Amino acid sequence: MLVVMEHGATPEHVQRVVKTIEELGYQARPMPGAQRTAVGLVGNDGRVDSSRLAALPGVKEIIHVTQPYKQVSREWQQEPTRVHVAGGIVIGGDDVVVMAGPCAVESETQILTAARQVRAAGAVILRGGAFKPRSSPYTFQGLGLKGLKLLVRAREETGMAIVTEAMDAEGVDQVAEHADIIQIGARNMQNYSLLKRAGRAGKPVLLKRGMSATITELLLSAEYLLAEGNRDVILCERGIRSFDPATRNVLDLTAIPLVHSLSHLPIIADPSHGTGRRDKVIPMARAAVAAGADGIMVEVHPEPDRALSDGDQTLYPDQFAELMRQIRGIADAIGRRIAEPVGAEA
Amino acid sequence: MLVVMEHGATPEHVQRVVKTIEELGYQARPMPGAQRTAVGLVGNDGRVDSSRLAALPGVKEIIHVTQPYKQVSREWQQEPTRVHVAGGIVIGGDDVVVMAGPCAVESETQILTAARQVRAAGAVILRGGAFKPRSSPYTFQGLGLKGLKLLVRAREETGMAIVTEAMDAEGVDQVAEHADIIQIGARNMQNYSLLKRAGRAGKPVLLKRGMSATITELLLSAEYLLAEGNRDVILCERGIRSFDPATRNVLDLTAIPLVHSLSHLPIIADPSHGTGRRDKVIPMARAAVAAGADGIMVEVHPEPDRALSDGDQTLYPDQFAELMRQIRGIADAIGRRIAEPVGAEA
Amino acid sequence: MLVVMEHGATPEHVQRVVKTIEELGYQARPMPGAQRTAVGLVGNDGRVDSSRLAALPGVKEIIHVTQPYKQVSREWQQEPTRVHVAGGIVIGGDDVVVMAGPCAVESETQILTAARQVRAAGAVILRGGAFKPRSSPYTFQGLGLKGLKLLVRAREETGMAIVTEAMDAEGVDQVAEHADIIQIGARNMQNYSLLKRAGRAGKPVLLKRGMSATITELLLSAEYLLAEGNRDVILCERGIRSFDPATRNVLDLTAIPLVHSLSHLPIIADPSHGTGRRDKVIPMARAAVAAGADGIMVEVHPEPDRALSDGDQTLYPDQFAELMRQIRGIADAIGRRIAEPVGAEA
Amino acid sequence: MLVVMEHGATPEHVQRVVKTIEELGYQARPMPGAQRTAVGLVGNDGRVDSSRLAALPGVKEIIHVTQPYKQVSREWQQEPTRVHVAGGIVIGGDDVVVMAGPCAVESETQILTAARQVRAAGAVILRGGAFKPRSSPYTFQGLGLKGLKLLVRAREETGMAIVTEAMDAEGVDQVAEHADIIQIGARNMQNYSLLKRAGRAGKPVLLKRGMSATITELLLSAEYLLAEGNRDVILCERGIRSFDPATRNVLDLTAIPLVHSLSHLPIIADPSHGTGRRDKVIPMARAAVAAGADGIMVEVHPEPDRALSDGDQTLYPDQFAELMRQIRGIADAIGRRIAEPVGAEA
Repeated sequence: MLVVMEHGATPEHVQRVVKTIEELGYQARPMPGAQRTAVGLVGNDGRVDSSRLAALPGVKEIIHVTQPYKQVSREWQQEPTRVHVAGGIVIGGDDVVVMAGPCAVESETQILTAARQVRAAGAVILRGGAFKPRSSPYTFQGLGLKGLKLLVRAREETGMAIVTEAMDAEGVDQVAEHADIIQIGARNMQNYSLLKRAGRAGKPVLLKRGMSATITELLLSAEYLLAEGNRDVILCERGIRSFDPATRNVLDLTAIPLVHSLSHLPIIADPSHGTGRRDKVIPMARAAVAAGADGIMVEVHPEPDRALSDGDQTLYPDQFAELMRQIRGIADAIGRRIAEPVGAEA
Repeated sequence: MLVVMEHGATPEHVQRVVKTIEELGYQARPMPGAQRTAVGLVGNDGRVDSSRLAALPGVKEIIHVTQPYKQVSREWQQEPTRVHVAGGIVIGGDDVVVMAGPCAVESETQILTAARQVRAAGAVILRGGAFKPRSSPYTFQGLGLKGLKLLVRAREETGMAIVTEAMDAEGVDQVAEHADIIQIGARNMQNYSLLKRAGRAGKPVLLKRGMSATITELLLSAEYLLAEGNRDVILCERGIRSFDPATRNVLDLTAIPLVHSLSHLPIIADPSHGTGRRDKVIPMARAAVAAGADGIMVEVHPEPDRALSDGDQTLYPDQFAELMRQIRGIADAIGRRIAEPVGAEA
Repeated sequence: MLVVMEHGATPEHVQRVVKTIEELGYQARPMPGAQRTAVGLVGNDGRVDSSRLAALPGVKEIIHVTQPYKQVSREWQQEPTRVHVAGGIVIGGDDVVVMAGPCAVESETQILTAARQVRAAGAVILRGGAFKPRSSPYTFQGLGLKGLKLLVRAREETGMAIVTEAMDAEGVDQVAEHADIIQIGARNMQNYSLLKRAGRAGKPVLLKRGMSATITELLLSAEYLLAEGNRDVILCERGIRSFDPATRNVLDLTAIPLVHSLSHLPIIADPSHGTGRRDKVIPMARAAVAAGADGIMVEVHPEPDRALSDGDQTLYPDQFAELMRQIRGIADAIGRRIAEPVGAEA
Repeated sequence: MLVVMEHGATPEHVQRVVKTIEELGYQARPMPGAQRTAVGLVGNDGRVDSSRLAALPGVKEIIHVTQPYKQVSREWQQEPTRVHVAGGIVIGGDDVVVMAGPCAVESETQILTAARQVRAAGAVILRGGAFKPRSSPYTFQGLGLKGLKLLVRAREETGMAIVTEAMDAEGVDQVAEHADIIQIGARNMQNYSLLKRAGRAGKPVLLKRGMSATITELLLSAEYLLAEGNRDVILCERGIRSFDPATRNVLDLTAIPLVHSLSHLPIIADPSHGTGRRDKVIPMARAAVAAGADGIMVEVHPEPDRALSDGDQTLYPDQFAELMRQIRGIADAIGRRIAEPVGAEA
């Protein structure tokens, strides 16, 4: 149950609500927010006499939130969240946003070439890993801070916004300083210490679904970010683990309409990790747009066969350009539009 | 390994190939086919001296089939199979075929109303269960033969072709007599006795992927049908079992491009069973078309709330009409077309 | 809800209960049984006025069955079912029953040798497939009726009871005629036509859990057997499908205490299919006994390396003898006993 | 491929091996170790001329490591690793070690009572969470440092060693300072920054398998710890995610013999999280010992019904005592022994 406070409610009003909840025998969770302050009542609230709370000064209304997640739920906020990113990009509105780039930043030439190519085809956000979570300690782990600086160079040259992953507290600070969106990877979806840090970093966060996370768990992890005051959260379906070795993962596109019905947060799809095979990326990227994704994230490399990681699932630049052409038609068929680079001809 | 015989090869030629394979220490599997006869060499054929086989009279060529399935593989047949169904419908060509109707045939009024509604919206094949596999022995199991006869009435009135499920040998015969496509359900995908019977029934077969079947297993089950001489096989992705109770199944749309790369058989998607929830069916049907499905199968009922089974995942007729409008645009964006009823204005 | 009839209740009494249920606006399902006749009330029965039913003549008591399965539930029958098999064997009592033998019957020598070996080590039931469900139509499918006759020879010589799989209606009749237990394989767990036939075959049935079947689904499939009047049902955990290719399946031993809490039916484990690898069979067979299984089914072959199927998961005879020694100690530690061949020294 | 250096090999010897590997066109990974130094050759090493490496000064032998993990593999080290813990406890030897205690440290009274109870029943290591990873940000997250200090008190009073979880860099330092074993939880199994920190913390590490981690991934995560120089690693099977909502997880006991065949590291099982239900914990704990686990970790609370977390899966003290009695018999049946508290009568 959420006790929503009026705009002019004072700290004393909030404190009185907290005290009343505790007197009723429940725990109170004050949730200050940009739009409104509320106080959550934790526990089985089926038999709470809400009239006593509704009558307190400063209380606007009582909302029953049936899900374990609160601030991320549609019950808490009806209108979709629009995440504003540097460069005038909005994720979560009518436009479908395309993020593209190599798996990892490998060199200045590589990332600048990739950025120019995906920008020319219509992508508005550049992806590229500086810190790479790898199953084996003996494989390439990314260029680190040097990689972040190369991404900044690519942004200066192309005007694209930048999304890149952070793996620990120090990395969150560095990514927040250099990039426009902090990515939390699938393996860290339930790394709560990392989520709390990212929730305080002051930049939008792209939260990838864990390999075997339920949608409820994904939304609860997003709740960690909102609970720290960060409302600019974008979710990402990137494939779940299943039994068929024929594909790396199963891209669960039903997650897209499901998240849209349960939460106000935008959700994008990553068909590159979701399939793990280049020739499956294009049809599944199209499918994601058709399913209503607010964006897609696609791996593109100037020379996939020479990529240091994930080469098998990375598109050639001309494949990516063809994909952009196809998804423009699909977006149109469902009443949406692929976001165009600012300054580009529509 | 497949030893492909020339068109004019005699039974004696085939017999000599068989004998040679056995002399080489392997098992031989003659595979007579409409287009060509071949003899499969079973076992680890890496070290077979194929030149001895290639030199035999009547032998056209040697094909190395690396997959455990043979006749269904792309290696065996490059061009896509086009399944011709009564009424001039072709599944597996450029057109995307829409099959729609209620989960189960419940009454004459219900099935005729449903048929008229989905036909008016553009569906070309009517679905409806006469024999229903139900988890519980105490729930509605379908009208049986009476249901088949009602489907025939609906075909007479609307001109639509009919697809309906068979669950056992007797049912295969009855369905083959009354319907146009024999459906083998997910629970029976590895019911090999049923597959063999359906393979000899003389009608196209729609084979649904089992709840936890790999693509290899799906194709091996299809191989059972082709091995019996039935080349008119349509595969169907209908959702796989996964860990998240939020949806009934996970619709694995990557199966579509995957099957297309491994096999020449057409594949459709069933977003109704694939999601189990009405509001997810429309976006996932759109996604299936965008992913390249050769058709979709959708549950539509005149009054979903009164359906005897699967009501939660069944579309209202006007939702279905809206879906048809959207997927026409998506098909167009990827260079395909939604099949129109014969005699209908294009 | 179950309306349990008194022993002397007449068909008229039952009919009156049915009529009353229908007047209350629900569906009635008469369930005649060996021990007692009951009438199930189908639907959301939370608000049914059961007093009206309890007052009818011939009604003994009202049982609320909360699960979708009825006759297999612990609510329906508190005491464990003891399945009596030819040769004085009881499955579901204090004794743990060991079934062993080759994957498939291959020849007279092979099956007789195997039978003598597993009998000597202490097994009381001989397993061996005559009809083999195989993913590929081109692999060995069993000796069929000839295999059944060889099993009968082995029984004549060793005194062991026989369990073997049936795959279709004809096979059920043949297996029921020759063997002591009819096995329904994992792939056919939801082949309801087959279940109905087996439920009428007059022999105990061993029902294997499907590769991705929930425990509820397993029990519902068992309900099909009981609904046909066959109360001699043994369940079998044989591994479920999961994501790790390191093992063929994941043997879900928690199913054993879970089934014991939900149902009165006995449950055994098959560690051979459950693991797919010989060196994992022994520890997992031990674990199954420790978890409380009412029996285990193990593949043993005189020469595993020459087996026509499943060789990798098949024990050598001396490994099996060592396993028997270990599980006797484990059974003892939890207050049970490994069933000994009748006539053998205890 | 591993180039194992002789005990007296100099840094120059190592450097020459590295240089030679690079000249051969491969990447070299020096792996200094307590027992021996080796240099890994990364890449497809099938065609490497190992004789050139074998002939270099200081090279002892060439080991072909076929798995992606190296130092944790049986190929690298044949003999089982024995992890020595404070108090003379050895994990990985003949003794089976029992760890028990509440899910979370809640109060001084609670943890001291629990410690005395499990110690009296025969447990040698006390478990109890001070830092709790919880899906929801609004639920009890543990007492933190205060919880660690209470665990120290319990150790002082009972002599038991302590295992408790760390969730971030700061937590690793605190846990390493106060506890005897640092636990890395399932959700952090692929939190590589955390693994690196734990690998340098100077205390044994208990690494739990991730909810959908393959055994290969589990061993690769362990490799991160060994790569940092920490050889005292204990693995833990705690249940994997599957499709049946009937249990919280599926306890994959086959992981135990599988890990034992692939790696020299000890592995224990956690049947509490593995099943999520109290009445399943006892049979599955027995099964784990029967399967060959080197230990078990069980949740026990003085008053499970009042536990702040995981109450449903927590044993009552007298249930735990009964479990201890049963597993002593099982260990005996397979030639092992339950580790007894030092100073306790055997």
